[in-house]
Amino acid sequence: MIKIAIDGMGGDHAPDIVIKGIEMFLEKDTSDTEIICVCPEEEFRSAGGKEFLPRLKLVQCDKYIPMDFKLSLSLFRDKDTTMYRIIEMLKNHEIDVAYSAGNTAAFVSLAVGTLKMMTNIDRPAICVHLPNLKDSVTVFLDVGANVSPKVLNLYQYALMGDLYAKNVLDIKNPSVGLLNIGEEPGKGDELRQKLFQRLNQDTELNFVGNIEGHELFTGKADVVITDGFSGNIILKVSEGLGRSFKSIMLKEIKRSVSGKIGFFIARNALMEYARKTDYAEYGGGVLLGTNGVVTVSHGRSSPRAIYHALVLSKRIAESSFFEQLREYSGKWVQQ
Amino acid sequence: MIKIAIDGMGGDHAPDIVIKGIEMFLEKDTSDTEIICVCPEEEFRSAGGKEFLPRLKLVQCDKYIPMDFKLSLSLFRDKDTTMYRIIEMLKNHEIDVAYSAGNTAAFVSLAVGTLKMMTNIDRPAICVHLPNLKDSVTVFLDVGANVSPKVLNLYQYALMGDLYAKNVLDIKNPSVGLLNIGEEPGKGDELRQKLFQRLNQDTELNFVGNIEGHELFTGKADVVITDGFSGNIILKVSEGLGRSFKSIMLKEIKRSVSGKIGFFIARNALMEYARKTDYAEYGGGVLLGTNGVVTVSHGRSSPRAIYHALVLSKRIAESSFFEQLREYSGKWVQQ
Repeated sequence: MIKIAIDGMGGDHAPDIVIKGIEMFLEKDTSDTEIICVCPEEEFRSAGGKEFLPRLKLVQCDKYIPMDFKLSLSLFRDKDTTMYRIIEMLKNHEIDVAYSAGNTAAFVSLAVGTLKMMTNIDRPAICVHLPNLKDSVTVFLDVGANVSPKVLNLYQYALMGDLYAKNVLDIKNPSVGLLNIGEEPGKGDELRQKLFQRLNQDTELNFVGNIEGHELFTGKADVVITDGFSGNIILKVSEGLGRSFKSIMLKEIKRSVSGKIGFFIARNALMEYARKTDYAEYGGGVLLGTNGVVTVSHGRSSPRAIYHALVLSKRIAESSFFEQLREYSGKWVQQ
Repeated sequence: MIKIAIDGMGGDHAPDIVIKGIEMFLEKDTSDTEIICVCPEEEFRSAGGKEFLPRLKLVQCDKYIPMDFKLSLSLFRDKDTTMYRIIEMLKNHEIDVAYSAGNTAAFVSLAVGTLKMMTNIDRPAICVHLPNLKDSVTVFLDVGANVSPKVLNLYQYALMGDLYAKNVLDIKNPSVGLLNIGEEPGKGDELRQKLFQRLNQDTELNFVGNIEGHELFTGKADVVITDGFSGNIILKVSEGLGRSFKSIMLKEIKRSVSGKIGFFIARNALMEYARKTDYAEYGGGVLLGTNGVVTVSHGRSSPRAIYHALVLSKRIAESSFFEQLREYSGKWVQQ
């Protein structure tokens, strides 16, 4: 039985959105997966939270890290916050996954500080699934755990992403690409040029070279590596662009009677289009490199995004990926 | 009269696509703007190029820089390539704009080496227009001239972008934002943190702080600054995503009869949607910082993108932006 602890106060509209996301998950998921919501009891109740024993449990915790929290040592001093509690539960093996849609920097810092990095892994990465034109998903990392990575960090992201694609997505011999500003080996800044050489020398990886921005959603590579700064911005640009495109489409449709009628008739197709290009379908990322399954999503997550992040959390916990990664990285030779 | 010289051999499908783009421009533009196509005569003729005297002139030139050219000094040694010739014509004031959809790195290097940078401007930037939800455009730079900029370079991009928005787009008091991974001042890497301070101290700029990826297309800032590495990837991601979204929409529509009928009825609205979200509508960027109007677009440009790049070229040449920038930057105090 998988146990997922969720930060009830994580997110711009917590706990309401979080509770709605949990309900959606518990309705659709028919396994015995258990959700432990760590939250002030009063907030939990007033957001409509009910305990569907034994599948939804409340762990009372009054304090929480605000969304605009600035990183400081107080994060570790106050052991009675919702985030601290769920990371502690993971450390003590009381749960299988720790998940929050709260302040990502705080949550990642707590995970690194408390759970510690796996042997030989220097820096963590957040890995997400991106939809692609092959009706599959592309593994994309890092999207924000480390904004100034070194060559070794990015090289390790490639190794972790490769193992993730194999273990969680069942992709055999995944192709691995480096996000860059051109196809040729010499493209990009010094970091990218050195990394290209290193990836190219690796005989175990199926490295397919540089991937340009317009190829990210085509499925040209199963795993795409980038630094946390670009990765974070690209993820948000994609999300914003999807939303902007939808606004423009609706505006154009509403401008004319034929637009409205056509939309009404084709609405199923257009809704399916909207669903497939909705960021919320892919909401949620997983922190790679620390000891334990930590999943995150951003503060603006909708209940649907929370639901999908829970589906992802369960999927990763059910796979043997984290055990494999621990074993695999233990053999890495550091340079 | 504006004279635009175009590299007939610039682009993945040159000269055919280039000639088609020129024809589109000459049909729609009713001014006396003249296009000078620098190209091997044989290629020009076989691509259907006709001289609509006096508005389209051919300048015979046999050699050209290939799309996959790797930067080397031979770029400057061979003075008889299409790119070299159009930059020379600009330097000699025989034309008002030099434009190529060819190898951007080569074209930018030739422009910097031959035309030289304006006084006090250290590094060039490529500036593009992005569509936004306010039915206007956002000035976005740099998209690839400089992949490893320093704080001073990015600060100057903000000053140049501000002046561009005022002079070319007639935006009064344009808001300027820094693309970053969070709203708060302390976000991002060291480069971004230092730049934020510097932009914030400037009393002339209407600096509105950090802009997150999902806000890039909302019009929250009129001018958005970033490094050439992120900028280039973001531009290509946006373009690729737009194309992927359209593929997914057409796939969904074709799946059902109601989808097809609805699409047929609403086709005008949906075509207008497709047009507004088409990268080709915004094809073309301008190189800021060198002495002379140099415009570029990427190798995959369609005739429509070439047409729009020519419209942009004309617009910039008609504005007093480059003269203003020369005067303005002449007064900058270097640090």
